[in-house]
Amino acid sequence: MVHAPDALQARLGFAFTRPELLEQALTHRSYSVANNERLEFLGDGVLNCVVGALLYERFPELREGQLSRLRANLVNQQPLYEIATELDVGRHLRLGEGELKSGGAGRPSILADAMESILGAAFLDAGFDAARAIVLHLFASRLAEIDPATHGKDAKTLLQEWLQSRKHGLPQYELLGTSGQAHAQTFRVACRIGALGLATEGAGASRKAAEQAAAQAAYQRLARP
Amino acid sequence: MVHAPDALQARLGFAFTRPELLEQALTHRSYSVANNERLEFLGDGVLNCVVGALLYERFPELREGQLSRLRANLVNQQPLYEIATELDVGRHLRLGEGELKSGGAGRPSILADAMESILGAAFLDAGFDAARAIVLHLFASRLAEIDPATHGKDAKTLLQEWLQSRKHGLPQYELLGTSGQAHAQTFRVACRIGALGLATEGAGASRKAAEQAAAQAAYQRLARP
Repeated sequence: MVHAPDALQARLGFAFTRPELLEQALTHRSYSVANNERLEFLGDGVLNCVVGALLYERFPELREGQLSRLRANLVNQQPLYEIATELDVGRHLRLGEGELKSGGAGRPSILADAMESILGAAFLDAGFDAARAIVLHLFASRLAEIDPATHGKDAKTLLQEWLQSRKHGLPQYELLGTSGQAHAQTFRVACRIGALGLATEGAGASRKAAEQAAAQAAYQRLARP
Repeated sequence: MVHAPDALQARLGFAFTRPELLEQALTHRSYSVANNERLEFLGDGVLNCVVGALLYERFPELREGQLSRLRANLVNQQPLYEIATELDVGRHLRLGEGELKSGGAGRPSILADAMESILGAAFLDAGFDAARAIVLHLFASRLAEIDPATHGKDAKTLLQEWLQSRKHGLPQYELLGTSGQAHAQTFRVACRIGALGLATEGAGASRKAAEQAAAQAAYQRLARP
């Protein structure tokens, strides 16, 4: 068996005692029957629990419904896909030939599932506190950025409100391209704000998700300098 | 503050270091703003994670989708309500006067929420492994009874198939009564199998849930003696 990639373990901030668990977490069902689908089930529960506990601690003033909304925003496919991209998980995935050729290593659903699987593998390898430490490490910037006052609103809305309050024109979204097969495409979108000479990009499993990611990048540059 | 009930702690198999957390878990929103809603949010995540991990370990041959179905059956309102009833949680609840008068202490949703809150409180008090031990203790019989071959089927279907395969007549379900106000009733139903002289009872938040509980009790008596 190929050994689990050291670079990835370094970026996770966690060294596996049983690197074969990380290998399995990186194995898509198109590659082997010993794939990451069960680990993804496990990791999904671990991620929900850890993020829930972190939000509970961090926001003692928020009610249950607000905590649920914040959690849903953090554990869905898009942030997991973005984190996987930051960690360069795609390079380490084991995919069947068809998936490999159709760009599976960059597909949001495959990458998000692999992130959950990695958490499941860490939980098996070293227990709940180890998985918690990884989540804390990977989600640190996203947790720090949470603004309970605005987090119910999506990034496109926040960006538009910010621009309108300053009498700037609306942003333009442009589809830059898609990759992957029809049923599982990845979209890349640009967000341009002409008056400010700003352009950002975002990617996602739908055009809408990619627009949100691009708007998020623009909003962060403008509103949180 | 009244001290957290020792009898309940004994039945949970867990002694709280900070009994005020258990008090809060038993406090309904109708009683105080310092209620159990945030603990319920926390406990829901803990319960999902623990049950997921227990199923993952116990059924190494099951796929992700089957594990998800088994988990959904274990962590929904009905089993939590039944466990809360076994533990006599209702007697320890702190409810506002209106809820108390309308039978809130026996209402499935309030009791199920309190069970999740208790798990959240235990997690805060002593960490993940302590919460895991409580879940293992409370769900022991339900985990032992899981039959992956049949668990997709509901109890009424299983009971009917068991009776038909032995040429017995169908069971009769009878509504014994309801309690609580219109929007939040608890139903009690009897399941009678005339040919076998067997009658069981079940309760739930709907007539259907109560019938399922009664059928489950009958099926256990017949098929798993």
